[in-house]
Amino acid sequence: MLFESPSVDRLVEAFRRLPGVGKRTAERYALHVLSAPAEEARLISDAVRNARECITTCSQCCTLTETNPCGVCANPARDHSIICVVERPSGMMAIERGGAYRGLYHVLNGALNPLEGIGPDELTVERLVRRIEAGDVNEIIVATNATAEGEATALYLSKRLAPLGVSVSRIAHGVPMGGGLELADGLTLSHALQGRTRLG
Amino acid sequence: MLFESPSVDRLVEAFRRLPGVGKRTAERYALHVLSAPAEEARLISDAVRNARECITTCSQCCTLTETNPCGVCANPARDHSIICVVERPSGMMAIERGGAYRGLYHVLNGALNPLEGIGPDELTVERLVRRIEAGDVNEIIVATNATAEGEATALYLSKRLAPLGVSVSRIAHGVPMGGGLELADGLTLSHALQGRTRLG
Repeated sequence: MLFESPSVDRLVEAFRRLPGVGKRTAERYALHVLSAPAEEARLISDAVRNARECITTCSQCCTLTETNPCGVCANPARDHSIICVVERPSGMMAIERGGAYRGLYHVLNGALNPLEGIGPDELTVERLVRRIEAGDVNEIIVATNATAEGEATALYLSKRLAPLGVSVSRIAHGVPMGGGLELADGLTLSHALQGRTRLG
Repeated sequence: MLFESPSVDRLVEAFRRLPGVGKRTAERYALHVLSAPAEEARLISDAVRNARECITTCSQCCTLTETNPCGVCANPARDHSIICVVERPSGMMAIERGGAYRGLYHVLNGALNPLEGIGPDELTVERLVRRIEAGDVNEIIVATNATAEGEATALYLSKRLAPLGVSVSRIAHGVPMGGGLELADGLTLSHALQGRTRLG
């Protein structure tokens, strides 16, 4: 308990809701906000409120965006025949940061997880199906995470999308670039061996 | 750049002002706020604003507090003859967490740092002097950090407070409880040896 003050306790609890933030970190953030000039606290408070109010979901790819459709969907220079399927907007951003991909995206808003009650209806699978049915798309790259849930989702998508006549592929899993073999775990290495490609 | 949205960029910048938060972490926090229900964003926004508005500085010990004087200064069960001097409210909280100290505190709001232009006038040294001159206090424990700035501040305080007729001491530096010798660095070990106390 910081200062025996209910409003500070609420602040610490609010920061604890951020991903990966525990009690100590939340207290450190709270102390920073309380020690800083009042404008700084107002700046953070306003930024949170305004950003949340400005942001909606793209009606096409379901990513978070300020404009609808989002910058990627609205960009005529992108290849509208390829859709890369990711679990979250953060995945889309990670691929955008790489800079090599020029197609579109589709954000599922999660992965299949029967234990937590997340089935296909909780994801944006049917919106993806409608995008494919509307034409133009001929390739789907499934870039869900390399977790049990992400793999199950990839498998489900490959079955669900097969009748639509699009090619469905999965991104490669293997040794990260710049990483030595000794740093990769066994599962990653077995995937890297299975997914080997011919040289020359 | 997240979503090419100015309001999201402002949110990421706002989170980056928190201590120890870099670009990646700030983006993760921003994504959480944007993906979460709107009430959650409002909750964080309001908590920051309200807490900052509720908190002031204790007119006696200069810590952050909702009531003035703070809970420690106002508590008649505490020993008002001892003052523990810390750099920041976080130091006071760390000692309170220990639970062994029953005296009062004084928060300096930093440590001497000539390179950053922080001299005695930027700290609350003169308020500490006035508290001592007002009587009752007979011991000062200097618990500034074990950094070059903290040590310089401790030295300065011992000289500044000497004419006031109070006993000034410095907390012990040594091997942390529960820690093996092999985990302590050389400087800590040499302090631990110098600060040895007689057994029995």
